[in-house]
Amino acid sequence: MSTQEITPNNDPVFERVALVGAGLIGSSLAWVSRKKGLARHVAVTSRSDATRKRVAELGFADSLHAEAKDAVTDADLVIVCTPVGACGAAAEAIAPYLKPGAIVSDVGSVKMAVVRDMGPHIPEGVHFVPGHPIAGTEHSGPDAGFAELFEGRWCILTPLPGGDPAATAKLRLFWERAGSMIEEMDAEHHDKVLAITSHLPHLIAYTIVSTAVDLEESTKNEVIKFSASGFRDFTRIAASDPVMWRDIFLNNREAVLEMLQRFSEDLSYLQRAIRWGEGDKLQELFTRTRTIRRGIIEAKQA
Amino acid sequence: MSTQEITPNNDPVFERVALVGAGLIGSSLAWVSRKKGLARHVAVTSRSDATRKRVAELGFADSLHAEAKDAVTDADLVIVCTPVGACGAAAEAIAPYLKPGAIVSDVGSVKMAVVRDMGPHIPEGVHFVPGHPIAGTEHSGPDAGFAELFEGRWCILTPLPGGDPAATAKLRLFWERAGSMIEEMDAEHHDKVLAITSHLPHLIAYTIVSTAVDLEESTKNEVIKFSASGFRDFTRIAASDPVMWRDIFLNNREAVLEMLQRFSEDLSYLQRAIRWGEGDKLQELFTRTRTIRRGIIEAKQA
Repeated sequence: MSTQEITPNNDPVFERVALVGAGLIGSSLAWVSRKKGLARHVAVTSRSDATRKRVAELGFADSLHAEAKDAVTDADLVIVCTPVGACGAAAEAIAPYLKPGAIVSDVGSVKMAVVRDMGPHIPEGVHFVPGHPIAGTEHSGPDAGFAELFEGRWCILTPLPGGDPAATAKLRLFWERAGSMIEEMDAEHHDKVLAITSHLPHLIAYTIVSTAVDLEESTKNEVIKFSASGFRDFTRIAASDPVMWRDIFLNNREAVLEMLQRFSEDLSYLQRAIRWGEGDKLQELFTRTRTIRRGIIEAKQA
Repeated sequence: MSTQEITPNNDPVFERVALVGAGLIGSSLAWVSRKKGLARHVAVTSRSDATRKRVAELGFADSLHAEAKDAVTDADLVIVCTPVGACGAAAEAIAPYLKPGAIVSDVGSVKMAVVRDMGPHIPEGVHFVPGHPIAGTEHSGPDAGFAELFEGRWCILTPLPGGDPAATAKLRLFWERAGSMIEEMDAEHHDKVLAITSHLPHLIAYTIVSTAVDLEESTKNEVIKFSASGFRDFTRIAASDPVMWRDIFLNNREAVLEMLQRFSEDLSYLQRAIRWGEGDKLQELFTRTRTIRRGIIEAKQA
C-alpha cells in the first residue's frame, strides 16, 4: 500500500515522536519513521548504556536520551516499546513531562494489563490509545530493527471508551503510513484472540523445545540434526525474547489459562485415541483441522 | 552435491525401479529418478483409477500399473510409498513376484512397525532395507511431487541386523544421487528420535488448530485474520495428510506416548508458573530453550 493512497501528501504525521525503548519494535519504528518521513524528529530513549551506544552507532535516532522524560518532553506521540511488565513504570516516569494534547501509545502483546498499568498515570488532556503491532521476528535488541517490519502486517488499536476519536485517527494514520493494516477492538477481546493465535502457540513451542533440551545428550544432537521434520518451526518460535514473553504470560494469565485448559483437554482426547488405537478419531480430527488452513490461505495470511 | 562426486559416471543405479503408491513421496521419487537418470525404467503402481489417470497426465511414469505385482516384476528396487498402515499388505501382495536379489524399501515415518509388518513377507534372497526420507510438504497426492524434494535433506536407512551391506550401499547411492544426505541407525532409535522431532510437533499442531476450530465463530474468523502471530506455523503443519499421520501415531504409539507424557509434565510446570505468577521460572525456561535454536543454526538446519 503506498502512502499516496492514504494521505494527500507525504508530510510528517507528527512533529516529534518519542520511542521509549529501542528493542526490535522500537528500533523498527525509528527506522520506518525516518524512511517514510512520519516524524520530523525521532527521539529515542533507553536506560541501558550499552543499548544507547549501539543506537548511536546504528544511527536511527535524531536524539538519544538516558532519561525517558527528556525524550517525551514536547513529543506529539510517545510510544512505549518496553516489555509489558515495564509499561506501568514507564508511564509513571514520563507522566509529568507529557505535553497537553500528546498521544501516548504502546506496542504490548497484551492490552488489558497495559490499560490497567499505564492508564492511571496518563494525565488529563493527554490521549492514551493502546496499540499492538502484530509483527516481529525471533530476534531482539536494537540491531534487530528494520523499516519494513510492519509492512502488510496488522496493527490492533484498542481505544478506551470515551477517548478522543481524532487522536485514534491520527495514530491510525501513523501506523498505516508505517505499512500496517489497522483493526480496532476492545482490550478484553484482543487478549482473548491473541491468547489462542499467539500466546498459546509460543507457550507450547517453549514447552516442546524444553522437553527436547532435557533428553539425553546423544538424542539431543539428533533432534538438532533432524529438526527439519517439524521441530524446527517450534525452535524458531521458542527463540523469542524471554523477558517479553514472561511478561505476556504473567499479564494475560486468565485468557492463556483458559485456552491452555481447552488445549489440554483436546490433547488428552488425542492421547487416549493413540493409546487405544482409535484410528477413526485421529483421522477425523486431522481432517477437520485442514479447513482452518484453507481459511488462512484464502485470507492471504499464509 | 553433484552426482560426479559420488559416482564415476551417471549410469543408472538400477535398471528398473518400482514405486508402490504415487503420493507426494512416490511421485517425487519418480520425477527425480527420471531427471537424474537413476533408473532406466520407472514403474508406478496405484490401486486408485483417479490417481493412475492423473499420473498418466503428469507423465512421470515409464509404465503404469493397477496391480503392484505387475510393477514389481523384474524390478531391481521396489520402494513402497504408501501410508505406514498399508505397508504390510503391500509387502504381502508383491512378495511372490519379487526378483531374487531385488532390494525392497519403504519411505515410512516409523520404522519398527514397518519392519514388523513388511519383514515377514519378504522372501529369502530379497534384500529388505527400510528407509525414511525426512522430506515433505503439507501437500499430498501425485500433483504434489517434484524432483527437488530430497535435495539436501536427510534420508535415514535402518538396515536389519545381518542384512547384506552391498544392498544397503546400493540404496544409499540411489538416495545420494536423489540429492539426500544419508544416516544409518537402528529402527528403534529412529522411532524415538522422530517421536520428538516430528511426531509430537505434528500432534501438538493438530491439537491447537483443533482447539481453535472449536472456538465460537466470531473468534475463529479473527484467529484466521491474526494467524501471523504464531498460530500460522501450526496450521501449515496441521494441514498434512490425515491418513498418513493417523498411521504414524498408531504405529509409533509407545515412543509418542512417552514423549507426550514428558511434554505434558513440562506444560503443567509452565501452567502452574503462570497461575502463581512465578516470572523467574518462566524466564529461566524461555532462556534455556534458545540453546537448541543456536545448535540448529550452527548445524545449518535452520
